[in-house]
Amino acid sequence: MFVIDGLQYCNWSEKVFRQMREGGVDAVHVTIAYHEMFREMVANVEQWNRWFEQFPELIFQGFTGDDVRRARAEGRTAIFFGFQNPSPIEDDIGLVEICHRLGARFMQLTYNNQSLLATGCYEEDDTGLTRMGRTVVTEMNRVGLVVDMSHSSERSTLEAIEFSSRPIAITHANPTFWHPARRNKSDTVLKALAETNGMLGFSLYPHHLRDKSDCSLQSFCEMIARTADMMGVERLGIGSDLCQDQPDSVVEWMRVGRWTKDIDYGEGSASQSGFPPMPDWFQDNRHFPALAEGLKDQGFSAGEIEGIMGDNWLAFFDASFGKAD
Amino acid sequence: MFVIDGLQYCNWSEKVFRQMREGGVDAVHVTIAYHEMFREMVANVEQWNRWFEQFPELIFQGFTGDDVRRARAEGRTAIFFGFQNPSPIEDDIGLVEICHRLGARFMQLTYNNQSLLATGCYEEDDTGLTRMGRTVVTEMNRVGLVVDMSHSSERSTLEAIEFSSRPIAITHANPTFWHPARRNKSDTVLKALAETNGMLGFSLYPHHLRDKSDCSLQSFCEMIARTADMMGVERLGIGSDLCQDQPDSVVEWMRVGRWTKDIDYGEGSASQSGFPPMPDWFQDNRHFPALAEGLKDQGFSAGEIEGIMGDNWLAFFDASFGKAD
Repeated sequence: MFVIDGLQYCNWSEKVFRQMREGGVDAVHVTIAYHEMFREMVANVEQWNRWFEQFPELIFQGFTGDDVRRARAEGRTAIFFGFQNPSPIEDDIGLVEICHRLGARFMQLTYNNQSLLATGCYEEDDTGLTRMGRTVVTEMNRVGLVVDMSHSSERSTLEAIEFSSRPIAITHANPTFWHPARRNKSDTVLKALAETNGMLGFSLYPHHLRDKSDCSLQSFCEMIARTADMMGVERLGIGSDLCQDQPDSVVEWMRVGRWTKDIDYGEGSASQSGFPPMPDWFQDNRHFPALAEGLKDQGFSAGEIEGIMGDNWLAFFDASFGKAD
Repeated sequence: MFVIDGLQYCNWSEKVFRQMREGGVDAVHVTIAYHEMFREMVANVEQWNRWFEQFPELIFQGFTGDDVRRARAEGRTAIFFGFQNPSPIEDDIGLVEICHRLGARFMQLTYNNQSLLATGCYEEDDTGLTRMGRTVVTEMNRVGLVVDMSHSSERSTLEAIEFSSRPIAITHANPTFWHPARRNKSDTVLKALAETNGMLGFSLYPHHLRDKSDCSLQSFCEMIARTADMMGVERLGIGSDLCQDQPDSVVEWMRVGRWTKDIDYGEGSASQSGFPPMPDWFQDNRHFPALAEGLKDQGFSAGEIEGIMGDNWLAFFDASFGKAD
């Protein structure tokens, strides 16, 4: 069984990398851009290169599914880059291939707001994929950069699923049938995603959870079981959205970037503006084994649990990160 | 026998790519930056990506020596990127690894002028490697980005040869003993280069040739024979500096960039400010076989000719483009 996390954005440190190893996490898709333009994103890659050089016994950069197998064989964690916003490609389609060369493997077409490509989940009107959105999805399909619609709105997400010639991902979100948050996804979206062999990564970010920080492991795993009935278990993975050790200033950067001078609370509120506490059964990377236990209690078979914990992501990585045939 | 050109900067077109195939050229190191900053260099990579997509039957991007072998097997030409100036890394050592990831395999520490790293061959005073120059050479050694001192001055070149832990290259220049141009290299430099297993690529740019555009093939090959006596034949290759089809505005960009508002004629003069005509026996990529014939007439053995035409470069590529052991 491989253990793969479909999204994290921690305040990275040796401590966090060591916890990945303690939790037996073979691969993590890490966010390296929220609102960063190209050159700023490159500076974040440079910072990661520094960590790869400093902690070679713990982490290395992953580019392909085989790097996850190598990580397992070598007792390290493969780090895969992704963007939560298409800001790093600016208005330049040629940057799609450049970013892929640098290792980007997931890119959200929108982060909450309207982008050059599609509509985010906090906009009032959803215009679907833009003209540039369609050309960029085609280019992403060509080079092997996965379309991620975690923060996108309904119509844009459905159009991306339909327009993309390769399966897409929703790396970190939950079904609205379980918890009707703005960031969670409708049955319509989840069914369309499953029909096109896309992947859903279940989020552990409290705003995406029923009962938020008080959500129980049992409730979370019941949700997974119901979603498996709807989508098929092969379409499911984890995308914890772990934002460990981040100061509240970072949640403000995530929500506000440079697009407004006002404050926007996103999924939070004026009284709860910071990062909400994680459920006690998923505090950090060391808790992945507990998640597998929770799935077992739901009656999932060993093979199904292996799929959800990472093997499904690995099959998706294998199929998605190379050039189109 | 592999045919490898150690430097070209043509006005790239399908015509030029087809001439590479006609000349049996397996690999070319192409300049993608003279004075470009990082983001501008990336735009040049994007343009190359467009050509790779448009002409996949003629060219593809090379990253390793094995890509030269693949080029030969597939009847295509492998294109390797390089910079004539360290401007693409700006003042940021982290960009060395980023540029290497994008495919840069050679970087000159200076282009004629003083840079952040070393002194160019047109400066009056040569201070050798700067503080940043030393750290950047160490980083280039680590990632597998070859130090190229073609346009550097004497002391800086000698210091780079000595300081670099891996062999360096002078991709396009000739010995001053044959033609005492400012861009050509002294016996001292050539001997130090050879002693450290560095490579010299012989230039066909007329300003580097005895009798300039009227230089004979025989004279050129006699020079190679004399240099082989001094350096050993394994240290020699071709670096044609072919600038085919470029308008004169490009030679001005090469010489002047944005560093002055005045005109600088470099190796030319007010009366001969443009590109000089190439010798009639080396007009373009189709003339590589003639070069091999000229070497034969000098009495080089078949194995020596194979080395000079490309096999020596290939051995150097194999040893130089990967991470340091």
